[in-house]
Amino acid sequence: MKILLIGASGTVGSAVDKELSARHEIIRIGRTRGDFQVDISDSASIRALFGKTGKFDALVCAAGNVTFAPLAEMDAQSFALGLQDKLMGQVNLLLIGREFANDGASFTFTSGVLSHDPIRSGASAALVNGALDSFVRAAAIELPRGMRVNSVSPTVLVEAMGSYAPYFRGYKPVAGADVGLAYAKSVEGLQTGQTFHVG
Amino acid sequence: MKILLIGASGTVGSAVDKELSARHEIIRIGRTRGDFQVDISDSASIRALFGKTGKFDALVCAAGNVTFAPLAEMDAQSFALGLQDKLMGQVNLLLIGREFANDGASFTFTSGVLSHDPIRSGASAALVNGALDSFVRAAAIELPRGMRVNSVSPTVLVEAMGSYAPYFRGYKPVAGADVGLAYAKSVEGLQTGQTFHVG
Ligand SMILES: NC(=O)c1ccc[n+]([C@@H]2O[C@H](COP(=O)([O-])OP(=O)(O)OC[C@H]3O[C@@H](n4cnc5c(N)ncnc54)[C@H](OP(=O)(O)O)[C@@H]3O)[C@@H](O)[C@H]2O)c1
Ligand SMILES: NC(=O)c1ccc[n+]([C@@H]2O[C@H](COP(=O)([O-])OP(=O)(O)OC[C@H]3O[C@@H](n4cnc5c(N)ncnc54)[C@H](OP(=O)(O)O)[C@@H]3O)[C@@H](O)[C@H]2O)c1
Repeated sequence: MKILLIGASGTVGSAVDKELSARHEIIRIGRTRGDFQVDISDSASIRALFGKTGKFDALVCAAGNVTFAPLAEMDAQSFALGLQDKLMGQVNLLLIGREFANDGASFTFTSGVLSHDPIRSGASAALVNGALDSFVRAAAIELPRGMRVNSVSPTVLVEAMGSYAPYFRGYKPVAGADVGLAYAKSVEGLQTGQTFHVG
Repeated sequence: MKILLIGASGTVGSAVDKELSARHEIIRIGRTRGDFQVDISDSASIRALFGKTGKFDALVCAAGNVTFAPLAEMDAQSFALGLQDKLMGQVNLLLIGREFANDGASFTFTSGVLSHDPIRSGASAALVNGALDSFVRAAAIELPRGMRVNSVSPTVLVEAMGSYAPYFRGYKPVAGADVGLAYAKSVEGLQTGQTFHVG
């Protein structure tokens, strides 16, 4: 399969890369690194990306930014980044990317544990992750040509605990390799409209 | 209790009104009808509303618009109404309203069944409902002064089947009175961070 991997050099993305690259052609995409660059928060940038990559069999997005801040300090503007970047960025990868997707192609997005197991400062992350998990459930039933869409919802990764540990006290981190497996299940299996929880 | 009820004259709102008005002072709010008017998609309008209502013990929102359209016809713009109106409208009722909320006050928002039991044309509704259910879970743990926040997630109401039946074939509609009970549980109980599913 020809797989577009957005966020390929990140903590999650590099675990996905490791799992899938032995068996598939991986096109590595990042905001600044990789074979191609994209800013998923910008529809024009997404469209330009597909113009360069051409058709594909699977798209995995392991990128997406949200604002982490204490709820007491948040206003509507604090939610804008998450809505525009991690949420609509991934939604737009499907809305625009479907034109470039081969029959039977899959989309796999990344949400996260904070939708249902919240931490302080995580209100925007929770909102965005919950939105993504419900979006894939609904979008899956309307996709034509055998296309599929799932999300992977990992808890915090072992590989991220260096910087994230203070925010995730009491959370049992999951190995990146195990997170990579969930993306393989989505890409190489046949399920659609699912959220694969890891951890 | 002094309860602000946004969407009071709607299908859901009138069921909430019926359940709560025997025991509480209800301030009825709508976009065009009611004691006061607000457009929840507009932060300035929300702030102006609280300036008129003054402090409150509970806020219930049974209002919120999203775009219903076949996924094939949707682009990023099709999701903007849901994000700005039903989603950020309700989030903003908390972000702005908390300044006017008495100690121990509750916020009760309305999501809906489409987050997990999707219909065609329901991708934006699903996304918004999932976002709201996760937002209340996360926001609840950061609210000060004993404030609480929950969502009510009804299936389609009996009272709405006149116009909604073609979109909800096979769904067992729930009586508005039963939906009203869930709002009473949120407002008059002590739970927080919960989604009360009805139907
Ligand atoms: N790390 C965890 O433990 C964990 C757990 C659960 C969920 N998640 C979620 O997984 C996603 C990735 O997290 P991560 O920790 O792997 O992040 P990371 O290590 O910071 O890597 C982010 C990757 O995404 C790319 N990127 C960032 N913003 C982008 C944009 N606007 N458009 C396109 N690409 C962009 C970066 O590209 P460049 O390097 O080229 O700039 C990089 O490859 C996030 O949504 C996060 O919430 C992470
Ligand atoms: N009906 C159902 O079966 C059902 C099931 C599950 C979930 N829901 C959800 O429940 C919510 C209400 O649905 P409904 O069927 O009761 O709607 P409805 O009968 O159309 O009533 C809508 C109410 O909200 C007010 N409103 C509309 N837009 C507003 C805005 N931007 N700002 C402030 N107020 C606004 C209206 O005010 P005015 O009348 O003054 O203009 C009216 O009181 C929606 O979010 C819907 O998705 C409904």
